[in-house]
Amino acid sequence: MKVFLVGAGPGSPDLLTVRAARLLAEADVVFYDALVSQEVLALAKTARKIAVGKRCGRHSTAQRFINRRLADAARRYGRVVRLKGGDPMLFGRAQEEIDFLRAQGIGVEVVAGVTAASAAGAALGVSLTRRGIARSVVLATPRAGEGESRSAWARAAASGDTVALYMGAHDAQAVVAELLAAGVRQDMPLALVESISLPGEQAHYGTLSELPQLARRLSGGPALIVLGDVLQEAVAGRVEPAGIPRSASQAA
Amino acid sequence: MKVFLVGAGPGSPDLLTVRAARLLAEADVVFYDALVSQEVLALAKTARKIAVGKRCGRHSTAQRFINRRLADAARRYGRVVRLKGGDPMLFGRAQEEIDFLRAQGIGVEVVAGVTAASAAGAALGVSLTRRGIARSVVLATPRAGEGESRSAWARAAASGDTVALYMGAHDAQAVVAELLAAGVRQDMPLALVESISLPGEQAHYGTLSELPQLARRLSGGPALIVLGDVLQEAVAGRVEPAGIPRSASQAA
Repeated sequence: MKVFLVGAGPGSPDLLTVRAARLLAEADVVFYDALVSQEVLALAKTARKIAVGKRCGRHSTAQRFINRRLADAARRYGRVVRLKGGDPMLFGRAQEEIDFLRAQGIGVEVVAGVTAASAAGAALGVSLTRRGIARSVVLATPRAGEGESRSAWARAAASGDTVALYMGAHDAQAVVAELLAAGVRQDMPLALVESISLPGEQAHYGTLSELPQLARRLSGGPALIVLGDVLQEAVAGRVEPAGIPRSASQAA
Repeated sequence: MKVFLVGAGPGSPDLLTVRAARLLAEADVVFYDALVSQEVLALAKTARKIAVGKRCGRHSTAQRFINRRLADAARRYGRVVRLKGGDPMLFGRAQEEIDFLRAQGIGVEVVAGVTAASAAGAALGVSLTRRGIARSVVLATPRAGEGESRSAWARAAASGDTVALYMGAHDAQAVVAELLAAGVRQDMPLALVESISLPGEQAHYGTLSELPQLARRLSGGPALIVLGDVLQEAVAGRVEPAGIPRSASQAA
């Protein structure tokens, strides 16, 4: 008995790993999150597909329910895939599922995926690290889970040379306030990248203080905030990002 | 004219993306770094393969040489792949190549890859983020490039809940000293993961202060240091990592 916990990558079906694509093609049942794209799900040609997204649900109840369904499926089916957007081990709430399944005597094999920060760097044509400018990259989320305090995420972000903020675009005003309070410059170059690697991919450029107005241009797809001096040329418009239509009315 | 800047992932050939594997299979020429595994290179069945690794070389001279060779190849060959270990936009020194090629009128398309931190989380069976414990992950390198000062990397690391240190295992004593000076606890749980996803994959567990003795057990493969309270159960031996042979003489 085994569950494969698989990273779906940023969205495009050819940005899954070869291993992930093979597991999906062979799966009997696939449990997937709200962030997994339809294009990726289509790779699971013969599997029963079960949505277990909980973007806005009560966390712990929903998680216990998912845990039980995964365990039941592992006992009933040959190949069970639990598919999570991006990389399962980054902002995927994977540990609760892993621990529950193992406690039930069910094996878990994790298949890493391309995380949104990497895909954003590729889409923008901007390396997140850069000699003399950025030797550290902070991946963080301003979104507090149930029972978590608004916490030290902003301090971590302020200490990094480059920052990628997951699930932060919905709450742009608060994100800006917390980052400014932690010491980030209000003119720090910023890119807001939506639907990375998918047909609706868009990048909006500006500075930290302009984030709220940039966020109003989003179309509802998953969005990542990238912050840092590595973006200076892109924000100044000196470098055209490869493959991304530039936002028509640029804030910067 | 175009160069594909492609992430080779952590080492196993089925942890490349589907897009990367296709590009390698179709490539006429592949320029690769020292960190790219032989298993991955074997996917480029018909390409001329050119090693341009510079793990210990003088940086800027070597980089100018690589830049020129890439541009020459783009003019002469149909499909040119520049292959970098992990993800090209994280510690891949990609920007200099991108900027040079674009200045020459050569297009660059970046294909993201699975970075070592994600692959380490998968190999250890430990989520790098975890509700109530870790909402930020710092990716950093203690290795200073030519012309860079020993800098704020340790401060960034000390501010993150989970830390992945790239290219830091060779200099374990200095890494420990700088992290302690930045305020990281000496008993912070740590895993040193070598040759992630490859046949020689190994994990050594301990605490920050034990890093130098753990580093002496390395066999010369690429190694990643992972630090943080998310590793507590793994270090205490309460959770067996999936698929990794436990180090025989555990330090913790």
